[in-house]
Amino acid sequence: MIRNSPIRADRIAADIDALAEITEPGRPYTRRAFTPKFAEGRAWLEQQIEHAGFSSHIDAAGNLIATIPGRRPDLGTIMLGSHSDTVPDGGKFDGIAGIAAALEVARALKEGRIELDHTLEIVDFLAEEVSVFGVSCIGSRAISGTRPAEWLELRSDDLSLETAIAQIGGEPAADATRNDIKAFLELHIEQGPILQDGRIDIGVVTAIAGITRIEIIVEGRADHAGTTPMGWRKDALTTAAWITLGVQELGKALAQGQFHFAATVGEFIVEPNAANVVPARVRMLIDARAEHRPDMDRFITELERGITGIAKKTGVTVQAPRIVSDNHPTLCDPTLLDALDKACDTADATHRRMASGAGHDTAWMARITKAAMIFVPCLDGRSHTPDEFATADDIALGARVLLDAVLALDKTLQEDR
Amino acid sequence: MIRNSPIRADRIAADIDALAEITEPGRPYTRRAFTPKFAEGRAWLEQQIEHAGFSSHIDAAGNLIATIPGRRPDLGTIMLGSHSDTVPDGGKFDGIAGIAAALEVARALKEGRIELDHTLEIVDFLAEEVSVFGVSCIGSRAISGTRPAEWLELRSDDLSLETAIAQIGGEPAADATRNDIKAFLELHIEQGPILQDGRIDIGVVTAIAGITRIEIIVEGRADHAGTTPMGWRKDALTTAAWITLGVQELGKALAQGQFHFAATVGEFIVEPNAANVVPARVRMLIDARAEHRPDMDRFITELERGITGIAKKTGVTVQAPRIVSDNHPTLCDPTLLDALDKACDTADATHRRMASGAGHDTAWMARITKAAMIFVPCLDGRSHTPDEFATADDIALGARVLLDAVLALDKTLQEDR
Repeated sequence: MIRNSPIRADRIAADIDALAEITEPGRPYTRRAFTPKFAEGRAWLEQQIEHAGFSSHIDAAGNLIATIPGRRPDLGTIMLGSHSDTVPDGGKFDGIAGIAAALEVARALKEGRIELDHTLEIVDFLAEEVSVFGVSCIGSRAISGTRPAEWLELRSDDLSLETAIAQIGGEPAADATRNDIKAFLELHIEQGPILQDGRIDIGVVTAIAGITRIEIIVEGRADHAGTTPMGWRKDALTTAAWITLGVQELGKALAQGQFHFAATVGEFIVEPNAANVVPARVRMLIDARAEHRPDMDRFITELERGITGIAKKTGVTVQAPRIVSDNHPTLCDPTLLDALDKACDTADATHRRMASGAGHDTAWMARITKAAMIFVPCLDGRSHTPDEFATADDIALGARVLLDAVLALDKTLQEDR
Repeated sequence: MIRNSPIRADRIAADIDALAEITEPGRPYTRRAFTPKFAEGRAWLEQQIEHAGFSSHIDAAGNLIATIPGRRPDLGTIMLGSHSDTVPDGGKFDGIAGIAAALEVARALKEGRIELDHTLEIVDFLAEEVSVFGVSCIGSRAISGTRPAEWLELRSDDLSLETAIAQIGGEPAADATRNDIKAFLELHIEQGPILQDGRIDIGVVTAIAGITRIEIIVEGRADHAGTTPMGWRKDALTTAAWITLGVQELGKALAQGQFHFAATVGEFIVEPNAANVVPARVRMLIDARAEHRPDMDRFITELERGITGIAKKTGVTVQAPRIVSDNHPTLCDPTLLDALDKACDTADATHRRMASGAGHDTAWMARITKAAMIFVPCLDGRSHTPDEFATADDIALGARVLLDAVLALDKTLQEDR
């Protein structure tokens, strides 16, 4: 173990600041996958990898990978990383903190003249955020063999995803699946307020919540707002209001339990949305997240029952909820969790176990290897906005934890064989 | 009195059908004021007026007026009419039924060789519906001296309202106010379900409800829908849902009273409206209608109180309601109401007194003369849609009532002098 951390917060801050400069003009921080700014960011990353003395390549999936060969390549690979792409308008730290931390771990090893037995790889996954093609986690899904074949035909304007992956140096037709990765670790900002509120340094992530998206369409009748008596209306908006409150109530009840649960009506479109017309139709999209699948099953069942009751009460038609997408929770690997807990203790970092409400590349990597992640605190839980903030010291402490965990795993993974 | 009505439903139907043909290609029934189709409709109306043996002109306000000179021009004018413009996508009968009925009254008088003492005018008011300039009742407001001077500077693309009025033959700079009109009557479809439901032929309109528009802005916080615990959120949508239900409850309570009252949240915009973001902001626009002003005052007071309570409960900021526009109710003239009731009895038409929840040109005409209106039933209360429907027989019965009322008023208005 390295007692005096060779991790340098100033280098992490410099990397994050430099990437932040690469953004759409006048629009911090926008570096969406497949755009010229994304390519520029990647080029800058490749340069940093080279400066640090490592080689890099783009894999078939379009991921940028730096390789630090191990003494015993037959043992396989330990992979660290996250993503450098952003959503529009934000996130100086979302993904980027994980890239900078991973790179700093590699630099610290090199400077400490420490050679691992395993090969170490630093990855910048392609398009973790919802991309211009409407899908996310394109790179980690490809590595884990879960990128649907039909995605290659997705189009953004005149460009297909297939061509876009080829343009950034990937081989879209090739099989990008990896079977040599023995462990994957990701550092990420929490994107929630729990660590800051509890003054805790590190969140050791036990599970990545499953995300279920449910569409509800309320169909009322467009009546004249002035002439239609209150009792005659089929007002889609008031019915949708009842449903919105029902979703909140159900979400709150399930969040009282042992596991992370959240439910949000995020999209809500009223038609015809005219001042003098009783709303005829509302489309709602519910985003529900569960660490524990039975919670989600209960949510869906009670939602259906609740909607039936509301429709009966208001006399307005509500279509049966339609499940638009449904991903189950991912449990992080217990061995890695223990290693991370121990690394926190070694680094004198306060830590707690917690679930991730957000999706991450780690959830896909868990399909093919032991995978886990740690969270570092971020300001007021803000994310996906230019206000997103985390301190370099907090990220550096996380990098120190990653470093210690990697050193430990380099040994223990051999013993587990 | 004319015992055997010379009113011909077939001519009314033919007029309505002919105007319905003049619509934007493939888009029934769209003839918005100031568009070429509107001008075409007007040209067709002028032709019909000429065929019927009357002269017509465009007044300074841009209204099309047919004149049937009376035997004693010094007595002034009885005016009948409505409007020929439509909203986008609809209304074959809204306004048009009143024009066709008024024209039929004039034709019936001529065929019956009945000369009035008063001059009779049939008016097609300019732009009763919300026009491309964003304002409505342009013609009736000008005649009643209530068209704001600054409206002439309103623009639609490159065109000013001033130029648009001049282009259709008006004199925008001239004073269009009239002081010679002794009575104004308008026939209109109900645009509500009350007459159909009660199987009543004619609604004698006692008042045109005041319309108050109130904007409410709810300001929450855009948090990550996956990572932000349910208890930490400032969800603008759930707060807006409580307000929506409060508006409905208040509206229903006031509608239980003696007078017409309705309240609707018609416009409802959620931001950022993204599946995975807790809604940060909702803009709501309330449309409230009161026949009796104290009801509106009570609504506003209780709305303010209710919102304060909801904001306190949810912890989400709600801006003080902003009154965007506020028109008081207009009472119809009691003398005219009596004349209309009697005319209904003469015509063997079942009738009831009722308020209009919708705004009409009559509300503006009431500023300068005795004014009243009658409603005829329409199918399921549907209006401002291609589905809008009223039978020619129902409209003809209404025209018969207008005719009898005009004949009576031609005498009684003299006695009142």
